[in-house]
Amino acid sequence: MILASIEAGGTKFIASVGDEQIRIIDTLTVPTTKPEETMKPIIAFFNQYSIDAIGVGSFGPIDVNRNSETYGYITSTPKPFWKDFNFVGSLKTHFDVPIAWTTDVNAAGYAEYILGNAKGTQSCLYLTVGTGIGGGFINQGRMLNAYSHPEMGHLLIRRHPNDMYVGNCPFHKDCLEGMASGPAVEKRWGKKGIKLAERFEVWELEAYYLAQALVSYTLVLRPERIILGGGIMKQKQIFQLIRQQFGQLLNDYVAVLDLERYIQPVGLNDQAGIIGGFLLARKELTD
Amino acid sequence: MILASIEAGGTKFIASVGDEQIRIIDTLTVPTTKPEETMKPIIAFFNQYSIDAIGVGSFGPIDVNRNSETYGYITSTPKPFWKDFNFVGSLKTHFDVPIAWTTDVNAAGYAEYILGNAKGTQSCLYLTVGTGIGGGFINQGRMLNAYSHPEMGHLLIRRHPNDMYVGNCPFHKDCLEGMASGPAVEKRWGKKGIKLAERFEVWELEAYYLAQALVSYTLVLRPERIILGGGIMKQKQIFQLIRQQFGQLLNDYVAVLDLERYIQPVGLNDQAGIIGGFLLARKELTD
Ligand SMILES: Nc1ncnc2c1ncn2[C@@H]1O[C@H](COP(=O)(O)OP(=O)(O)O)[C@@H](O)[C@H]1O
Ligand SMILES: Nc1ncnc2c1ncn2[C@@H]1O[C@H](COP(=O)(O)OP(=O)(O)O)[C@@H](O)[C@H]1O
Ligand SMILES: [Zn+2]
Ligand SMILES: [Zn+2]
Repeated sequence: MILASIEAGGTKFIASVGDEQIRIIDTLTVPTTKPEETMKPIIAFFNQYSIDAIGVGSFGPIDVNRNSETYGYITSTPKPFWKDFNFVGSLKTHFDVPIAWTTDVNAAGYAEYILGNAKGTQSCLYLTVGTGIGGGFINQGRMLNAYSHPEMGHLLIRRHPNDMYVGNCPFHKDCLEGMASGPAVEKRWGKKGIKLAERFEVWELEAYYLAQALVSYTLVLRPERIILGGGIMKQKQIFQLIRQQFGQLLNDYVAVLDLERYIQPVGLNDQAGIIGGFLLARKELTD
Repeated sequence: MILASIEAGGTKFIASVGDEQIRIIDTLTVPTTKPEETMKPIIAFFNQYSIDAIGVGSFGPIDVNRNSETYGYITSTPKPFWKDFNFVGSLKTHFDVPIAWTTDVNAAGYAEYILGNAKGTQSCLYLTVGTGIGGGFINQGRMLNAYSHPEMGHLLIRRHPNDMYVGNCPFHKDCLEGMASGPAVEKRWGKKGIKLAERFEVWELEAYYLAQALVSYTLVLRPERIILGGGIMKQKQIFQLIRQQFGQLLNDYVAVLDLERYIQPVGLNDQAGIIGGFLLARKELTD
């Protein structure tokens, strides 16, 4: 069984070919320019193999509703050229194989659920905190998608009384993404996150916002585990700060596992997206 | 087919017997005192019929995890006598029939989804705003339960800058329930909700809090429809206020149906809980 996986991000696409054991055979990285330009080398790359199924995790918003006329499309993205791109359709014209289609965060979350730090649980919330903030929820092997996929990065949160930063979300100004994404950290403190590692107050405030959001997700979704990924979460000291503030805010209102186990970093590092694509491709063949 | 349904509330239990068309044959109401005292007349009532299945929607928190040793129990409720009551077990000793077991809000939400104002949709968030605030989410016919059932009434929200009320949640003070439940309205304004019908500022503020919560639920769950029930929502003027503030807050970030259709009152009035119990009992027999 030869599986193909695409992690379609806003700055680059990663395409990999692997086997049914999810061992990577080959990988290609292409910058995200225009749909035809970006897809062409990927299609040529996949054509070298006899592919049985493809799994795609894409930046969004995307249409994941199988009954919709625009299923498989990137929909209302502000990214030039990509709005209304028929992603699955463009693959289908070249590969007559099952194609799994979901968001980048759903794919990464699924990988963490099956093989990463949520392995062995029944449900997992995956949140990435990077250029944007996005999340996916997997419950008993199924990704949560209803009218559409979650957009949980834009949760409304309480500002810290001493925080004067206005927030940079173009839709909501001071939503979670507007206050706690990588670019928000950079604009508030005047330096990139990686350069702020020693500044305790930076991560204390970041934890203040993330802990609030995790309490809300916990109350609504009741995951067995929460996995946090993305560039900002490379500051490992933040995990303890989040757990502390989370514990205070939740105040034992609902039962969760002890917080060391409940709130964890990624287990698959930057490979979660690609591995998720393989797993979802394999699932298309075996379900 | 004879179906039994129990709506187990904090002040009273309603027990009904009905047929497979969900037509109610007979109903009994019993005050919520102690488990044995409350259950005894209900068991005698059901024993008059040849019951094929029972559906229970109970106040919580309850254990809904079928693999758990305490499945079917009311768990950590502060309500005297009811903590650790084996609800399903106590029914099983009298009735050797399938028993559906869920929260009161899940049952009511399921009824709205199948027969009420969310009929014909694929997913529905149901929120009750009464003595407490609680919610349930149904997606493609399945109720969302992961590590446990949702407790979404305690969402953290932003206080209104002019609102001096401290909030009455014993766990979080000014969470949604602490600021917007019936008792919170009464304590803030000094009168019961029903006596405040003419005071515009009461419902404008109430809508301010509920709209925030609905935005968060929308981003996390992406329901096709939201149904609002409970005593507070009998103030029908509040729906337009919620829709207005919801629209401003969400700012078209994600697609929802037009707000008249998206945010609606209950279709089954006070019967949603009992009807949900019947529907879930019937589902046990037919699935
Ligand atoms: N080690 C780090 N410490 C703090 N912030 C980081 C670190 N690495 C990346 N970031 C920040 O995370 C953001 C990028 O997130 P990342 O998840 O790597 O990519 P993307 O979200 O674009 O896929 C940037 O704002 C960057 O400044
Ligand atoms: N018509 C009404 N207008 C405003 N508030 C009401 C109305 N009816 C009931 N309430 C309030 O709703 C709460 C009771 O909620 P309800 O859903 O009826 O019961 P419960 O939540 O206890 O099952 C009380 O705080 C009550 O004051
Ligand atoms: Zn936003
Ligand atoms: Zn609370």
